[in-house]
Amino acid sequence: MKKYGFLGIGIMGKAMAANLLHAGFEVMVWNRNIERCSPLIDMGARQGKSPAEVVADSDITFAMVSDPAAAESLCFAQNGVLDGVSAGKGYVDVSTVDPETAMKIGRAIQGKGGRYLEAPVSGSKKPAEDGALVFLCAGDRALYDEAGPALQVMGKKSFYFPEIGQGAQMKLVINMIMGSMMTAFGEGLALGDKLGLPMTSVLDVLAQGAINNPMFQLKGPLMAEGNFNPAFPLKHMQKDMRLALLMGDQHGQPLHTAAAANNAFIKARNSGFGDEDFSAVLKAITS
Amino acid sequence: MKKYGFLGIGIMGKAMAANLLHAGFEVMVWNRNIERCSPLIDMGARQGKSPAEVVADSDITFAMVSDPAAAESLCFAQNGVLDGVSAGKGYVDVSTVDPETAMKIGRAIQGKGGRYLEAPVSGSKKPAEDGALVFLCAGDRALYDEAGPALQVMGKKSFYFPEIGQGAQMKLVINMIMGSMMTAFGEGLALGDKLGLPMTSVLDVLAQGAINNPMFQLKGPLMAEGNFNPAFPLKHMQKDMRLALLMGDQHGQPLHTAAAANNAFIKARNSGFGDEDFSAVLKAITS
Amino acid sequence: MKKYGFLGIGIMGKAMAANLLHAGFEVMVWNRNIERCSPLIDMGARQGKSPAEVVADSDITFAMVSDPAAAESLCFAQNGVLDGVSAGKGYVDVSTVDPETAMKIGRAIQGKGGRYLEAPVSGSKKPAEDGALVFLCAGDRALYDEAGPALQVMGKKSFYFPEIGQGAQMKLVINMIMGSMMTAFGEGLALGDKLGLPMTSVLDVLAQGAINNPMFQLKGPLMAEGNFNPAFPLKHMQKDMRLALLMGDQHGQPLHTAAAANNAFIKARNSGFGDEDFSAVLKAITS
Amino acid sequence: MKKYGFLGIGIMGKAMAANLLHAGFEVMVWNRNIERCSPLIDMGARQGKSPAEVVADSDITFAMVSDPAAAESLCFAQNGVLDGVSAGKGYVDVSTVDPETAMKIGRAIQGKGGRYLEAPVSGSKKPAEDGALVFLCAGDRALYDEAGPALQVMGKKSFYFPEIGQGAQMKLVINMIMGSMMTAFGEGLALGDKLGLPMTSVLDVLAQGAINNPMFQLKGPLMAEGNFNPAFPLKHMQKDMRLALLMGDQHGQPLHTAAAANNAFIKARNSGFGDEDFSAVLKAITS
Repeated sequence: MKKYGFLGIGIMGKAMAANLLHAGFEVMVWNRNIERCSPLIDMGARQGKSPAEVVADSDITFAMVSDPAAAESLCFAQNGVLDGVSAGKGYVDVSTVDPETAMKIGRAIQGKGGRYLEAPVSGSKKPAEDGALVFLCAGDRALYDEAGPALQVMGKKSFYFPEIGQGAQMKLVINMIMGSMMTAFGEGLALGDKLGLPMTSVLDVLAQGAINNPMFQLKGPLMAEGNFNPAFPLKHMQKDMRLALLMGDQHGQPLHTAAAANNAFIKARNSGFGDEDFSAVLKAITS
Repeated sequence: MKKYGFLGIGIMGKAMAANLLHAGFEVMVWNRNIERCSPLIDMGARQGKSPAEVVADSDITFAMVSDPAAAESLCFAQNGVLDGVSAGKGYVDVSTVDPETAMKIGRAIQGKGGRYLEAPVSGSKKPAEDGALVFLCAGDRALYDEAGPALQVMGKKSFYFPEIGQGAQMKLVINMIMGSMMTAFGEGLALGDKLGLPMTSVLDVLAQGAINNPMFQLKGPLMAEGNFNPAFPLKHMQKDMRLALLMGDQHGQPLHTAAAANNAFIKARNSGFGDEDFSAVLKAITS
Repeated sequence: MKKYGFLGIGIMGKAMAANLLHAGFEVMVWNRNIERCSPLIDMGARQGKSPAEVVADSDITFAMVSDPAAAESLCFAQNGVLDGVSAGKGYVDVSTVDPETAMKIGRAIQGKGGRYLEAPVSGSKKPAEDGALVFLCAGDRALYDEAGPALQVMGKKSFYFPEIGQGAQMKLVINMIMGSMMTAFGEGLALGDKLGLPMTSVLDVLAQGAINNPMFQLKGPLMAEGNFNPAFPLKHMQKDMRLALLMGDQHGQPLHTAAAANNAFIKARNSGFGDEDFSAVLKAITS
Repeated sequence: MKKYGFLGIGIMGKAMAANLLHAGFEVMVWNRNIERCSPLIDMGARQGKSPAEVVADSDITFAMVSDPAAAESLCFAQNGVLDGVSAGKGYVDVSTVDPETAMKIGRAIQGKGGRYLEAPVSGSKKPAEDGALVFLCAGDRALYDEAGPALQVMGKKSFYFPEIGQGAQMKLVINMIMGSMMTAFGEGLALGDKLGLPMTSVLDVLAQGAINNPMFQLKGPLMAEGNFNPAFPLKHMQKDMRLALLMGDQHGQPLHTAAAANNAFIKARNSGFGDEDFSAVLKAITS
């Protein structure tokens, strides 16, 4: 039976690792703040002392950290992932990073004989808990196939692209659309409010139309009541918008709508809403 | 049995009037270019010679024209709607107009003893054909109730707001969100294309996520193959964006995302895509 | 000796009429709030009881009011300008209005045998006081020539364009550039401030370079000390941005920079800075 | 008498070093392509064989290379600047680099006991020849004072900021304002053109007003005749806009106007105008 590792036990990582445990997989976990591992230990996980130990002990190690800097540090720090890699080890980074970081990590892993799959996820807390994430995988095809059973437990669908970096790129394209849609939604709610149209009426009308979607349905009522508990923290969405805009800059694609949306997220982050849900951009739009 | 009138037999009006006829309603129709009425005459409609004649002959007259100027002209021109209004006549304007125009028309109708309901629709060609429109009604409550059976034949849902102008305002809020979503979508597809991600892959990934919606599902594959046959003409979406931005201006709501989207639609319109579907904004984004 | 009229004694009108009086012209004045005329009466002006009376009494009447609605009302109201127009009367509207309003007023004046010149000014309080305005004239060439001596007293330079509306258009083009430059300037100051660069240092460096200009030199130090006393009220700049954007919309010119600037002015106006100087947009940019 | 070094004898460096020689300073020069040094040798300069030799021989060494990568290479390559640094040596980098590169080079120099001043210049070929550059200096205060006589020979004005990186930051703030002003200018010219206002008339009116500035005066007539010969290449302006926007992102300052401007430069660069003057953004605005 294969042995799995899981590095990074935040909101997302905890839910994902729990699903692996529920499904009967053997999992060793590690987190920088080690206390966050406790609930998983209670569920049967083994505690790793360092990323290197987890990787060395596991056939396939998953990692879910918050940004490119954390992903890079996780890999290259002392007793980090790289220190545990040996021939044949599989490393599946499900964090959202920029394509350059994915390529840098991938080359380092491969340089030590390991196998690398980038696999950023689409979906936040609820889909993570429900095993309904979508994985955007790119890199080692054989590792993709071997990791299949675990990906199926944690997600509802996986996509595979051949070039390392394409998973990150696809993720950023999707999140850029999502971020712009959120500011479009927020502007509509804000304008409706200024016009005296009840926010619930706007939501009711939206629910009948061609642009109805789970995000509006889930977040709309929460936004209307001022509930911005984080499913996907605003600062992470803003980071994804920045990375997507830099891809557009590099590849010569003007992105006017996304740039406007990004500025709204920057304003919201600077107003202290970075750790709230990204729907809190509404507060920056109405202020 | 009530007698109905229908003024304005364009893409939308033809489908709506046809549904009234299918349902067995008695309908008199009129269009500026009278030949467009022929298919409806073949289905049993009677031909009106002027808006005034249609209004005078009908208990409730619906009007569906393309913009505020047309709606105003339809009402105030010689042998226009107003010339046919007498006490108790019902006039339901399902065109999308700005709130000021709705109020101006409403007051004129009421000034001659008529009853006025603004009832802009959400939905384009396909929902119009399927009797699945959404009506955003505001004004005379009794007329709203009396027009109910006809609205139910043409639509799947109706909303009622007390103040004339609120129907138009709600419509513009919804369409503003829709227009911004379309440019967000287009920017995502354009960026993906520049990155070498197949457009169909982007659509597949979107279809799995929290922002999946009928508009993306319906229009995405058409856009990917360059099919921009008009369901909702781009020039009309651009007009709605302009009107929504003016409401924001008037009511003090900055609308950065919508303003960026509007400029994309202006560019597309100026490039000659005004009569194509509003999804043709993709061509302005990628050019 | 020619007799002159002056309608609209606000910040600008007062300074302009005072210059006419100083130069020895005979002037009859009128203002909606009649008390504002007192200082000019003290300087030798005669008090008109209505716009109609002023126009009837004068060979050439100047008008300076705050927006298109005021210009239209001034012309068409009872005892308004039009009621005083007879054959040969000259009416020079130096207000900033949209081209449509200029054309509407012009046609009405001409319809009664009068002569019309639109002549919006470039320049605000200080140039008005110094007789250093720039007039952007369009319409009746003979009236332009006859009004020359008065224009030379109030301004330093006049331009003539043949088509009524072109003066307004040119004014709006210039003010659109000015408004966008102000938000560009404000963003630079705001970013410098966030970086810890003293605002006075940014101004010193700007003063040495190729983009140095009187507006930065005059307003920069005031902005740095938070002095936003109105030379050109923000709400008027925002109105001009809106009108310029509508011209772009109508003529198919996307205006991304100006649209972003306009939203900043809308935000500032909505924050209560509408009656401060338009440089107060800095407060909206930094908030 | 102090001994000076000068590294990088391109268009700018040649003019600057020549001014030092004209003023009687003792200068050793070096350039990657050594032949470019000949005219300076003829003027009395001594030829250095490597950056290390120049730095070792000089009290204060100036460097003027084309971008951050070249500046970094000049410093860290074998026989590069760092190999010549010993206690007390002064190194003044007048190249335009990003703040991070300035800090990296500065720390390396200081780590070997040297003194570092970043001093990016405002001004291009003509001001360099005329000794009319502006230096934006940051870092070692004593070195700034000692380099004063040389800076006064090469420039008309110097500014000093304490923190390394602030020179680069100031340069980017100024260029961001300049870039946004250029798109504001371009939008005005484009709108005027769509309205039928001659571009030369728009320039004439601008020349009378409060926003008149050397950039509009110099570039306006060239833009009107379609002359986009590069004084400051568009791709460099776009890079500066990107770097400025990233500073805003990092420090929480939304920059809506600059983001819109940046997208116009991206579009222009992608249309093949990257090596033309940055005023060629006009072509992206009008297309």
